[in-house]
Amino acid sequence: MKFTCTTTDLNKAVQSVMPAIAAKPSTPIFGGMHIIAANNTLRLEGMDINLSMSNEIKAEVEESGEIVIAASRFNDLVRNFNGETVKVTKSENDNNVRLQSGKADYKILLMNVNEYPKYPSIEATQSFVLEEEKIKELIKKTAFACSSDSARPLFTGVLCDIKDNKITFVGTNTHRLAIRTLDVENAPDMSVIIPSLVLKEINKNLNGKLPQDVIFSIVNNQLMVKIGNWSVVSRLIEGKFPDYKRVIPPQFSVKTKVNVKDLAGAVSRMSLCSGSENDYSIVKISIGSNEIKVMSSSPDVGTGEEIISCNTEGNPINVAFNAAYIMDIMKNIETEEAEINLNNSLSPVCIKPISEEEYIYIVTPVRVIF
Amino acid sequence: MKFTCTTTDLNKAVQSVMPAIAAKPSTPIFGGMHIIAANNTLRLEGMDINLSMSNEIKAEVEESGEIVIAASRFNDLVRNFNGETVKVTKSENDNNVRLQSGKADYKILLMNVNEYPKYPSIEATQSFVLEEEKIKELIKKTAFACSSDSARPLFTGVLCDIKDNKITFVGTNTHRLAIRTLDVENAPDMSVIIPSLVLKEINKNLNGKLPQDVIFSIVNNQLMVKIGNWSVVSRLIEGKFPDYKRVIPPQFSVKTKVNVKDLAGAVSRMSLCSGSENDYSIVKISIGSNEIKVMSSSPDVGTGEEIISCNTEGNPINVAFNAAYIMDIMKNIETEEAEINLNNSLSPVCIKPISEEEYIYIVTPVRVIF
Repeated sequence: MKFTCTTTDLNKAVQSVMPAIAAKPSTPIFGGMHIIAANNTLRLEGMDINLSMSNEIKAEVEESGEIVIAASRFNDLVRNFNGETVKVTKSENDNNVRLQSGKADYKILLMNVNEYPKYPSIEATQSFVLEEEKIKELIKKTAFACSSDSARPLFTGVLCDIKDNKITFVGTNTHRLAIRTLDVENAPDMSVIIPSLVLKEINKNLNGKLPQDVIFSIVNNQLMVKIGNWSVVSRLIEGKFPDYKRVIPPQFSVKTKVNVKDLAGAVSRMSLCSGSENDYSIVKISIGSNEIKVMSSSPDVGTGEEIISCNTEGNPINVAFNAAYIMDIMKNIETEEAEINLNNSLSPVCIKPISEEEYIYIVTPVRVIF
Repeated sequence: MKFTCTTTDLNKAVQSVMPAIAAKPSTPIFGGMHIIAANNTLRLEGMDINLSMSNEIKAEVEESGEIVIAASRFNDLVRNFNGETVKVTKSENDNNVRLQSGKADYKILLMNVNEYPKYPSIEATQSFVLEEEKIKELIKKTAFACSSDSARPLFTGVLCDIKDNKITFVGTNTHRLAIRTLDVENAPDMSVIIPSLVLKEINKNLNGKLPQDVIFSIVNNQLMVKIGNWSVVSRLIEGKFPDYKRVIPPQFSVKTKVNVKDLAGAVSRMSLCSGSENDYSIVKISIGSNEIKVMSSSPDVGTGEEIISCNTEGNPINVAFNAAYIMDIMKNIETEEAEINLNNSLSPVCIKPISEEEYIYIVTPVRVIF
């Protein structure tokens, strides 16, 4: 094997594949990166049991071949090369590869290329294409609401629901739920749960400057996503996602409008005064006709309150929340004002941008004594 | 107690005192910050057994008084205030303090002010003043060489040696030693060991834009350092510091000059190829008359080499180092070239800026087979 490529291209490609290589690989060979040189193309592959990633870059290939090299070591070397190009050479029966860049010259031990599994191939039975901004928006507005508790895998993923040319992403940890809907063209109806980890990686590979289409392909319980030459293959999460439509209350007896920044600031400041008896901060919110009082209190710490203005239809009401759940949604509302709609102090509350029906956040209040 | 001050001033002052408050205070009262309002001045104090800090800012004091408030909570609140000023009120027999800033209004529980010890006062028997740039230079060039091993406290401090209007700082972890000397005026001869932690805090309180004099006062084994209104009081480290002058070899049989950036880059790149059998990376350096070959190797990883140019007087020689010890000193040499002076592969090596006698770095080579 013998090829030359630019250090910048190689570095970017290595970075884009590294997330598939676990810190503690399930078998030693998965600690390696598979590098295949042929037809003036360099293909990099990283994988473990549930997740695989690949990328391809241009290279001047003098002699085709393939190797597996310890991935984190290779990553360190490539990141530190100071030459403009990297020259990689391996003789037929050598178990070392020679890496040359600038004045640096390494001979690095290789892993057994015959042990490396074949990269998963997907003969898609269902597929669809999303523009970069759309997938970005869907991920941003929903993935944050997922759980990170691996004991309940269902809620570590985002439901992707396609029906009648509408795509809906839903993230929930059972205490709060975020739903974002957008139009989509030529997409078959489907309902799958995508690991939020995979969505995070997709997001990292989006390129704001030169937006690219993102291609989703699904077969059985496998998902492949392609952005340009980069691909990720992952298992989908199996199980029955809760019926999110049933969680949205059909009507509300109290509706209030509030400035997003004011509410976010008050909740964040008041949450500081919540005690350490819970592992989260609780804020109490007292909604009047023109004023919302945001409060917190703890016997260990003291009390705090802050008043912000609002515009309410319906009767005054008191309701308490996990402060983080309110701050999270306030970060994701892009209108100046938000709508908070509720029925009573204990039933699900709906928070959403003003006059927007395609982004909805449902949060369950906390039961406290006011 | 009743006072008003600007949020910015209070925030800065709280930050400057927080490092004296341990994450796990030795007694609960040391988890508090002592706040004293009198004569239109607000004084903040933080302390624990070995370290105390105080600062003073202007305030509009309507009613003098003092409180002790849970420091990390107070810090969180002050950092998040969004009003321009903070109003602090406490009634005579109340064990709460009221904090008001912007629209936020808190009542926070206080700690028992009678339990808080008196701030250590220093009736200096010896003192001296250093300009800001000088103390900055002394700290930067020596403190990095200290040990962080608290089992050997002597080497966690920097020797401050004053003699004949010269001040010398010396940092060592016994494997390497950094010595920086500067002129000083009106300073009594002395030799004390200052905890490197205290030097780090001094450094944080230097203000590049409005340089201030730094006043050192010493009595018995206590040190007080004042910068403007900020003060730190610390114990000095007791013990006999090694005679650093004896560590510097009187003459060298091999002297070479090398570009600082080239050497730093080569050592850092080659260190990546060193194995995991040690907890540090070893680089081998082979010095010829016009070329230095920087090498590393490990049976687990492979080998690497990089050649840089040099200008040597004396015979070719091979020497190996802990790579980090070379990279550290290269970061601190400000001339384009460095001098490396040595006698043989195992005796102390001297590295210093070209034609500079007042900054010297001594490093012990590692014994390896070339």
